[in-house]
Amino acid sequence: MKTCIIAGGMIEDDFASSFLKKEQFDCILAADKGLAFLARAGILPTEIMGDFDSLPEGILDLYKEKGQIPIHTFNPVKDNTDMDIALQRAYELGTTELVLLGATGGRLDHFLSTWQNMKTAWQKGIQASIVDRRNRITLPVKKHFTITKAEQFGKYVSFVPLEDQVKGLTLVGFKYPLAPTDLVNNSGGLCISNELAEEVGEISYEDGILVMIESRD
Amino acid sequence: MKTCIIAGGMIEDDFASSFLKKEQFDCILAADKGLAFLARAGILPTEIMGDFDSLPEGILDLYKEKGQIPIHTFNPVKDNTDMDIALQRAYELGTTELVLLGATGGRLDHFLSTWQNMKTAWQKGIQASIVDRRNRITLPVKKHFTITKAEQFGKYVSFVPLEDQVKGLTLVGFKYPLAPTDLVNNSGGLCISNELAEEVGEISYEDGILVMIESRD
Repeated sequence: MKTCIIAGGMIEDDFASSFLKKEQFDCILAADKGLAFLARAGILPTEIMGDFDSLPEGILDLYKEKGQIPIHTFNPVKDNTDMDIALQRAYELGTTELVLLGATGGRLDHFLSTWQNMKTAWQKGIQASIVDRRNRITLPVKKHFTITKAEQFGKYVSFVPLEDQVKGLTLVGFKYPLAPTDLVNNSGGLCISNELAEEVGEISYEDGILVMIESRD
Repeated sequence: MKTCIIAGGMIEDDFASSFLKKEQFDCILAADKGLAFLARAGILPTEIMGDFDSLPEGILDLYKEKGQIPIHTFNPVKDNTDMDIALQRAYELGTTELVLLGATGGRLDHFLSTWQNMKTAWQKGIQASIVDRRNRITLPVKKHFTITKAEQFGKYVSFVPLEDQVKGLTLVGFKYPLAPTDLVNNSGGLCISNELAEEVGEISYEDGILVMIESRD
């Protein structure tokens, strides 16, 4: 099941609407203020959740009145962010592929927390991505995979470890190919702003949690 | 020596100008496109560096003509980002406190790389921060420190580990105090959106690399 979580960060309406249309998700979870975008765009979520402390008044009532969409309300005094509550629900519902919109922009504590929490999806074997107009950040679950020029998100392809390092990273078909190298987190930008040189790029690594960031200027 | 690096990410001119005026840096390093902001604001950098592939034409010439400010030009085909080149120079010059402007917004590969590369400053005992209008992200070099309501950057104070975990994190004087707890990176948002309850908040931890994010909506 392909799930999209719409969170309360920056949403660029045009991009998000066309992205949702193109990707055809089986399940759309609205996390708190993310519901405001869905209401503007006229897109019905599968479920709604949050403490609703950051959602403009009136919006939730529209969905309460309809009464067809499950609404999960949480106490604002909690140890989990709205995003994490949505992530937990996505796992419960049997998500096998996960995209997070509205997870960037604005407060970077939320972004960094969400980025690190994708580790849990990775541990469950669920490929998760954070997407905005300029970036797609993916935690690939396979240790050997390919990307293609036809399907890539942007011109640039960068790699960082989620934690201290990724062992034996190898890049083939790239402008800057890489023989097996341990990519450490303070490498100084070793794998930043790479580009595909061939139609297909081949990526493999031996150990660690790899983060791939496809981006455009 | 207090150094500010101005990089080529998002710069909010009003915020950046007043921040630079207030903070009174000993050294301002312009990294590539960051120079465009300094030119607009009429602020003279101490040194200029980069491959200048992203700097609008004509700007560098202004400084070349003056001939008073050292300009370090690098090959665009390199393993290091412009930010990393500036970081290395900041260390060479004897920086003891470091702030990075223009490190957020836009391409998240650059942001994540810069954030992780602050580890090197931390290893050298240099306190480093990434700052924009809404966020100040700091890697505190001390394992026991305080923050005050008078000096805090925003209403919210969040903590994440730079890598897999921070051991024995303790928070006193906060809305949500914390008894010694191992903060893991996929905690689900345990230390996100905390606030000071007292005038002074006391933070300590035993091991790992702690990241403090002060932010405002």
